[in-house]
Amino acid sequence: MRKIAALIFPRFEVLDLYGPLEMFGMFPKEFDIRIVAATPDPIASTQGPRTAVDQLISDAQTYDLLLIPGGAGTREGVNDDVLLNWIKVHSETAEITASICTGSALLAKAGVLDGRSATTNKLAFDKMTPYGPTTNWHRTARWVEDDDIFTASGVSAGIDMSLAVIERLLGPKAATDAALWAEYERNSDPDHDPFAATEKT
Amino acid sequence: MRKIAALIFPRFEVLDLYGPLEMFGMFPKEFDIRIVAATPDPIASTQGPRTAVDQLISDAQTYDLLLIPGGAGTREGVNDDVLLNWIKVHSETAEITASICTGSALLAKAGVLDGRSATTNKLAFDKMTPYGPTTNWHRTARWVEDDDIFTASGVSAGIDMSLAVIERLLGPKAATDAALWAEYERNSDPDHDPFAATEKT
Repeated sequence: MRKIAALIFPRFEVLDLYGPLEMFGMFPKEFDIRIVAATPDPIASTQGPRTAVDQLISDAQTYDLLLIPGGAGTREGVNDDVLLNWIKVHSETAEITASICTGSALLAKAGVLDGRSATTNKLAFDKMTPYGPTTNWHRTARWVEDDDIFTASGVSAGIDMSLAVIERLLGPKAATDAALWAEYERNSDPDHDPFAATEKT
Repeated sequence: MRKIAALIFPRFEVLDLYGPLEMFGMFPKEFDIRIVAATPDPIASTQGPRTAVDQLISDAQTYDLLLIPGGAGTREGVNDDVLLNWIKVHSETAEITASICTGSALLAKAGVLDGRSATTNKLAFDKMTPYGPTTNWHRTARWVEDDDIFTASGVSAGIDMSLAVIERLLGPKAATDAALWAEYERNSDPDHDPFAATEKT
């Protein structure tokens, strides 16, 4: 049983979080999902609905997987040293650290993407990538795997990335089954990216 | 501004709820999203994470859109007369009533699908359809539109259905934009269904 810390913060993006949690949640004997935040009260998403908090970042816990969503709140997140330090410290002990959409800006600012390959939301590409000056940013990628660090492109790309994580941890049949159960037409090619970022002009 | 009631109950399916809310949430000037439930405390999903409740079904409110997710909890939901009555009463005044996955069983049991065309989760098709004995159930459909009633197939089909609702209410550009912003490869053909239910043998 692997423990997943799904980090939330004010104005997280709902599908960044819940697309992946749908897929990991298909395997309740394999994954134990905890919603982690800096404060105990339910946290409002960019879209409005609030998610309840299971554990605090101040709790003495370790996790096997970190899931870091994006959303409008990453603008404040990149200046939140307590949050960034939690990401840095816990990614060092986690088996896999994964971000979705602009969540990669938090990983980058925390130093987790130093010298690593990664991607991010394509519509916000040129705003996000300066947070990782030594990162090898991929303009064309549905998601990027660099050893233990997975980064997904925008919002729904997190679903495809999660299935890749499930495939690595539980094997290809598990990932195929999860997509089928969710009636999800999976993109299993990380380089297939219909939303690739155009070159800055 | 249209008010959306997104109904939740114990063991709702997270992506049934949050796939659509991601899309509607792209238009905060057009849609006001309220999480509605029978009880005030945060409600645990099938996957574990809990969503906070904005309004109770006992509140004197009307809504423009009803969103009814599925999930393991629909097994209890189909026997919950208070919940079913809320669905029945509010669907009569709503501009659009939409279900995702096994949420269609709740619509059917509430009588909303009497004499209507509809679809549901394809892996649970033969378990769900008896709840609507006079419903014209579609075995092959990503979603079905019958005037003001939209029903989606399993889990992620709710995203495509929501984009169809957005297209009807706000026009085709809004739906195309929402899919782009979420980096979502939209299926805009309700009859394209790679997960069609096979005939019962």
